Amino acid sequence: MTEATTANILDGRELAERVRAKLVSRIESLRTEGHEVRLDAVICSGNEAGEVYAASQERTCRQMGIDYRLHHLSEDVSEGAVVDTIEGLNADAAVHAIMVHMPLPSQVRSDLVQSAIDPRKDVEGVNPANIGNVIYGRRSLMPCTALAAMTMIESTGVQLRGRVAVCVGASRIVGRPVAVLLIQAEATVISTNVHTPDLAAMTRQADVVISAAGVPNLVTGDMIQPGAIVIDVGINRVKDPKTGRTRTMGDVEFDSVSRVAGWVSPVPGGVGPVTVAMLLRNTVEAAERAAG
Amino acid sequence: MTEATTANILDGRELAERVRAKLVSRIESLRTEGHEVRLDAVICSGNEAGEVYAASQERTCRQMGIDYRLHHLSEDVSEGAVVDTIEGLNADAAVHAIMVHMPLPSQVRSDLVQSAIDPRKDVEGVNPANIGNVIYGRRSLMPCTALAAMTMIESTGVQLRGRVAVCVGASRIVGRPVAVLLIQAEATVISTNVHTPDLAAMTRQADVVISAAGVPNLVTGDMIQPGAIVIDVGINRVKDPKTGRTRTMGDVEFDSVSRVAGWVSPVPGGVGPVTVAMLLRNTVEAAERAAG
Repeated sequence: MTEATTANILDGRELAERVRAKLVSRIESLRTEGHEVRLDAVICSGNEAGEVYAASQERTCRQMGIDYRLHHLSEDVSEGAVVDTIEGLNADAAVHAIMVHMPLPSQVRSDLVQSAIDPRKDVEGVNPANIGNVIYGRRSLMPCTALAAMTMIESTGVQLRGRVAVCVGASRIVGRPVAVLLIQAEATVISTNVHTPDLAAMTRQADVVISAAGVPNLVTGDMIQPGAIVIDVGINRVKDPKTGRTRTMGDVEFDSVSRVAGWVSPVPGGVGPVTVAMLLRNTVEAAERAAG
Repeated sequence: MTEATTANILDGRELAERVRAKLVSRIESLRTEGHEVRLDAVICSGNEAGEVYAASQERTCRQMGIDYRLHHLSEDVSEGAVVDTIEGLNADAAVHAIMVHMPLPSQVRSDLVQSAIDPRKDVEGVNPANIGNVIYGRRSLMPCTALAAMTMIESTGVQLRGRVAVCVGASRIVGRPVAVLLIQAEATVISTNVHTPDLAAMTRQADVVISAAGVPNLVTGDMIQPGAIVIDVGINRVKDPKTGRTRTMGDVEFDSVSRVAGWVSPVPGGVGPVTVAMLLRNTVEAAERAAG
């Protein structure tokens, strides 16, 4: 017998749609004032997954009234030429939002390229100056995945100030930036990692658990305080031993957690779609700031 | 009757001296290879405390074989002129270490000036890109006070990986950067702030407590796990109600904590002197990197 689910499901597709709907009116306001919202993306040949994502981005942007421009570089482009492209976009006053499709060819260091993006135009929030600005309490464009996790928490209406938030996993791309954004939101933040001696002792203190460990079913119901918010940022490709088919799973054991938590985000259909919407929100914000 | 102190006292002056002694041999090695270690500092007139600090720096640098050059700007200098000075130093290959004496005149935004320093020459670690680089696991010059706290922990010989470290206070200048460095060191990190509902419940879990709250006597012995490392980064100027004299106190109630902790750093004579040494260490590191 299966117990009834008690947690509210944080539907990422629905939240992303609400975010985009709000953006459309901001884009229209900008246009009324004579400012076109534009997103300039850089891609190198041979990046098939990137091309698929770029095509989907272009469609979404067109629907929303964002001018999407894809800059193609060759697969054997030099690192210097990629940086030159970025610097050209930095210098162009018509450009206010820049993103680079990963991965880059092996001869190009991605950290060097990311650091070259003008922080004010860095709508993926990948220039280290941007997360650094958050630490120093300055205006910043924030990394999209971390921002998506924060936006999901915000959508519950629960205030983070004075709450205990636990990050499961301290990866460079997600766990650490999320911890920084939670500290900025004045939560008491516990950052855990694979060396944490007793993870459950930490998560049981949490009003909010954000898991970005990359381990399927790591977070189980017995680790969660009743009523807590559980955000699953894990994206794990797992092969079903019976069917042999691959499917995407998060870090959270959904069945057991959803019987205890107050809110839980599913995978797929949780943080993923919101992350894509955050890139667009950053793009509109960069355009608004550029418009002054 | 007073109980005996059990904690090891982390003597910051002694540690700073050990750090400087090691630096002297690195400076000599660089000189042998034809590289002069140099520190370029910028100061605006009217900054009396800064002048005192600069004079002391110059003496220390001279003793250690570091070429200290102080660049004077006028009190009514424009923001653009300060940034131009920084950019001139950035562009000068003979310069590999830059610091700016705070505070700057009111017409000059310090965040703008700090962000203008080339991250590779930013030996105070104040450019947000540097703490951002730590988050992304990249080579970086780290903020001196946070680095001093880490160096004190390191001096105990206790490994941070797998330990629980609690930061008391989440200030932009100290608490947050310290949390980032502890995460980078693979500790389980708890960042607390003034809104934390039960601070003692957090600190009692800690193998390491770093206090940077700016509240005298905030951390007491009953909040500390026996044998823990307690680092006091608080600098509080407190007036004695009886004598009327002002003295410097930390956040840690030294008497009660030193009866429980394994190690404790005093104030004054703890993190302060080590912070000054960290600036010199960053200067030597920047010189070594520049020398390739």
